[in-house]
Amino acid sequence: MSLLYEGKAKRVFNTEQEDVLRIEYKDEVTAGNGAKKDEMLGKGRLNNLITSKIFGILKQKGVPSHFIEQISETEQLVKAVEIFPLEVVVRNVAAGSICKRLGFEKGHTFEEPLLELFYKKDELNDPLITDDHVALLNIATPDELSTIKNEALKVNAVLSEVMNEMNLILVDYKIEFGVTKDGQILLADEISPDTCRIWDKETQENFDKDVYREDTGSLIDTYETFYKKLEEL
Amino acid sequence: MSLLYEGKAKRVFNTEQEDVLRIEYKDEVTAGNGAKKDEMLGKGRLNNLITSKIFGILKQKGVPSHFIEQISETEQLVKAVEIFPLEVVVRNVAAGSICKRLGFEKGHTFEEPLLELFYKKDELNDPLITDDHVALLNIATPDELSTIKNEALKVNAVLSEVMNEMNLILVDYKIEFGVTKDGQILLADEISPDTCRIWDKETQENFDKDVYREDTGSLIDTYETFYKKLEEL
Ligand SMILES: Nc1ncnc2c1ncn2[C@@H]1O[C@H](COP(=O)(O)OP(=O)(O)OP(=O)(O)O)[C@@H](O)[C@H]1O
Ligand SMILES: Nc1ncnc2c1ncn2[C@@H]1O[C@H](COP(=O)(O)OP(=O)(O)OP(=O)(O)O)[C@@H](O)[C@H]1O
Ligand SMILES: [Mg+2]
Ligand SMILES: [Mg+2]
Repeated sequence: MSLLYEGKAKRVFNTEQEDVLRIEYKDEVTAGNGAKKDEMLGKGRLNNLITSKIFGILKQKGVPSHFIEQISETEQLVKAVEIFPLEVVVRNVAAGSICKRLGFEKGHTFEEPLLELFYKKDELNDPLITDDHVALLNIATPDELSTIKNEALKVNAVLSEVMNEMNLILVDYKIEFGVTKDGQILLADEISPDTCRIWDKETQENFDKDVYREDTGSLIDTYETFYKKLEEL
Repeated sequence: MSLLYEGKAKRVFNTEQEDVLRIEYKDEVTAGNGAKKDEMLGKGRLNNLITSKIFGILKQKGVPSHFIEQISETEQLVKAVEIFPLEVVVRNVAAGSICKRLGFEKGHTFEEPLLELFYKKDELNDPLITDDHVALLNIATPDELSTIKNEALKVNAVLSEVMNEMNLILVDYKIEFGVTKDGQILLADEISPDTCRIWDKETQENFDKDVYREDTGSLIDTYETFYKKLEEL
């Protein structure tokens, strides 16, 4: 079936069912909006397995998503949605852009999870936006935004707990939401070490793409180790 | 009396009264957080006259400020406040940073005034922040922030009307707020062509610091013309 969209990490295909898409996870890895770029054999498989597992856990805990089922090592079926052009970031601990932007020290724990919205627009470099910008840019209605924020924080509660059981800390993550033809707002895209920061509770060791961004370890070994921990749950 | 603070555009002095400060407007003009810098004879006088006049109008229309009285061509007395480290920007028409940041065309009129908050912190280059950041950074309580936003929009209503009478458009402006010892939140700092964008309604000609930023005219002549229009009201 026809390719609908090819992104940096995934290909999205139509299926025979109008409301179902097939997502193929690629081995490509990029950082800095494509500035750094490599092929990592096995990355697509790992992110497909991890995302499938995580969406499964979220469903069990009452957080619905676009995920239908994993159909191969690198593919899954999902519900077709229109993606809100929003990167919803939730932070429990300061790391990455917020340290530079607001002067937080890396590792600073926020008293409450901090939710930030970025306008998903490559030409503008995904700028931080406020709720007022979301309305102004017609990205989402206030009601939709409120649903999105609630769901994003539910994801945080569930995943922080899961990571905690694995002796890990969920530092931050980026998620995307979309709306189905019949108006249901659903968590979509992926949740993987590409889109999260996950630290070892004791050693602060990274289990995420920072090993690639910062050249501090093997991405495949890191993702594989994380996947095994997740499987052992 | 002792110099309390010397900024790029003003000097702030103590007076014999603990709750009163003297502000001296300087002839220095800067742009791009100090990257461009010049001395413009008479600028201090004009901004002092203009700010005094504008705070006077605002007071008449029910918007209190720190302004007490103009005491010389370049000086005014104000109530001492602790300034919130916030640059409150209100935009009626897109110009400046929002065009680059969010892709609006210069001159695009917003359906409603857009209020943006920037963290007043030179080392961080005054980043855009959200209400959640304001709470997180302990910049203001939610109640204080709500008062600040309300007052900022009142300023907009009054000044847009005034500019309109002068055949001008109030495109955008930056204001600051502070809190007095007894907890009153007051509009403070200055409101002048240094801190506003003001366009001619017909020709879109600038009556503000953009003539300096963009090297399109004499800053002093521009401010003088604006001041005369204001005096003729
Ligand atoms: N259920 C879904 N329905 C439709 N589109 C989806 C769904 N889930 C994810 N997508 C979109 O599919 C694309 C996945 O590709 P990928 O993650 O590789 O993109 P990308 O390189 O990150 O670029 P961008 O996310 O900026 O488009 C994304 O655009 C994502 O928003
Ligand atoms: N009523 C007031 N009480 C105390 N401080 C004030 C009052 N009104 C204004 N200020 C402060 O006085 C200073 C005025 O100086 P100026 O505007 O030249 O500063 P600046 O170069 O813009 O730098 P910055 O505003 O970042 O400190 C500002 O820091 C402003 O916040
Ligand atoms: Mg993506
Ligand atoms: Mg100033």
